[in-house]
Amino acid sequence: MSSIHQDPSLLRAACREGEFRGQTSGQCPGYAQANLCILPKEYAYDFLLFCVRNPKPCPLLHVLEEGQSVFGGINICTDLPKYRLYRHGVLVKEEEEGGGGGGGGGVGDGLTDVSSLWRSDLVTFVIGCSFSFEEAMSRAGLPLRHVELGLNVPMYNTNIACEPAGVFSGPLVVSMRPMTPAQSVMAVQITSRYPRVHGAPVHIGDPATIGIADIARPDYGDAVPIAQDEVCVFWACGVTPQAVVMKSKPSLCITHAPGCMLVLDQKNDSLSL
Amino acid sequence: MSSIHQDPSLLRAACREGEFRGQTSGQCPGYAQANLCILPKEYAYDFLLFCVRNPKPCPLLHVLEEGQSVFGGINICTDLPKYRLYRHGVLVKEEEEGGGGGGGGGVGDGLTDVSSLWRSDLVTFVIGCSFSFEEAMSRAGLPLRHVELGLNVPMYNTNIACEPAGVFSGPLVVSMRPMTPAQSVMAVQITSRYPRVHGAPVHIGDPATIGIADIARPDYGDAVPIAQDEVCVFWACGVTPQAVVMKSKPSLCITHAPGCMLVLDQKNDSLSL
Repeated sequence: MSSIHQDPSLLRAACREGEFRGQTSGQCPGYAQANLCILPKEYAYDFLLFCVRNPKPCPLLHVLEEGQSVFGGINICTDLPKYRLYRHGVLVKEEEEGGGGGGGGGVGDGLTDVSSLWRSDLVTFVIGCSFSFEEAMSRAGLPLRHVELGLNVPMYNTNIACEPAGVFSGPLVVSMRPMTPAQSVMAVQITSRYPRVHGAPVHIGDPATIGIADIARPDYGDAVPIAQDEVCVFWACGVTPQAVVMKSKPSLCITHAPGCMLVLDQKNDSLSL
Repeated sequence: MSSIHQDPSLLRAACREGEFRGQTSGQCPGYAQANLCILPKEYAYDFLLFCVRNPKPCPLLHVLEEGQSVFGGINICTDLPKYRLYRHGVLVKEEEEGGGGGGGGGVGDGLTDVSSLWRSDLVTFVIGCSFSFEEAMSRAGLPLRHVELGLNVPMYNTNIACEPAGVFSGPLVVSMRPMTPAQSVMAVQITSRYPRVHGAPVHIGDPATIGIADIARPDYGDAVPIAQDEVCVFWACGVTPQAVVMKSKPSLCITHAPGCMLVLDQKNDSLSL
């Protein structure tokens, strides 16, 4: 059972020292959390262009220099609770990678330190996360059904194609939060002010319109109940870049483990317009 | 004297056919106009990263594929009224370049067709322009002193450094519009909704704070009178990327000529949140 850290630098130190291995939802209230995607330089132009062309699913907060792994007070290799490693698009289990590596220790279902995997040609992309706008929605009294029920947000593949860029292409993945029509209006207003963390919804209403056959069966995360008087509100989701990157099978890709985000020193409210 | 075109495709055809060579301010009301910056691929990653790290001065609307010069109904090489060509950071006069080139004809103080300069390694960046938010400000009754007086907006170099990226670095260039404090509040509200065309102001008040020694002597454009009850409101300016690119002296760079923008089929209001 993890306690709630208030200070991002203390949470990151706990990660670094192996004391925090959990999901980061609810940690460091008020501070922005981010998706992590690390790729070799040979893929960096295409991925950067993909993010620029698809700002709703891939809102870039920071792009580090080639080989740079320290960023302000953050060590990219050690300061997340858990990482995932993909080679040629396939998830590498930590026991396959871990043993001989030295620095890279694995615990549970993810790598906890990727220092031993670091290379001078790696480029780190820090991508905004919906936790930031969820905090603003919650503060305004809007419902977050998955949070109320202690579940992961339901996510779905859609029939909306992202703008391709070089080797990267694929469908938009969306997250869904049910609410009343009046609440959906306020949700548009609030999340519009957060374009750097997915921004306004991409769809409201009939899931079939965007290619979702069964709202009760999400492609990622957990199904949530939808009340009679509620509509489905869909946002572009940070799973999109990961799904797209995996599909293109880069030789190497390091990401955060699901729910185990990079906690920044930046305040959520500083990302608002 | 040019008449006002309503339809972007007709204005672009007039450019293509040599019938329109003027500034595009006031043309095609309601439609977005854009800055153009064309660079060889070897500079494209650094420039793309520079834009991502500096979204206020360099809000990317589109990045074309390497070698791509046709984009929707737009021929990038012919559909602007006038272009500028820089080699190693130095502006090339059209008489030096023109004659032998065949396709590339020069009129007045700029190239009017860059087809003969086109190469398969060129990457076109289409960058948002303040004309879009000026239309929204004008519609809300906010003053645009330079427009009232038929002048160019005053622009200034500042002591605010852009985030560097690879070979590109330099100071932020700002434009200035004087207005009352109450109007400045509304200007923040309105332009905040246009993050893709420079967004909210970067500074309000004392010019010295951002390194401007004499507000009556702009570095680019024309000085405008400031009334007793008015404050200076400063926005990040699309001259920034051009100034930064020129400073880094790329082997080749093609841009629009000042005020002679690319007119898009996209509506200004579609760029608003």
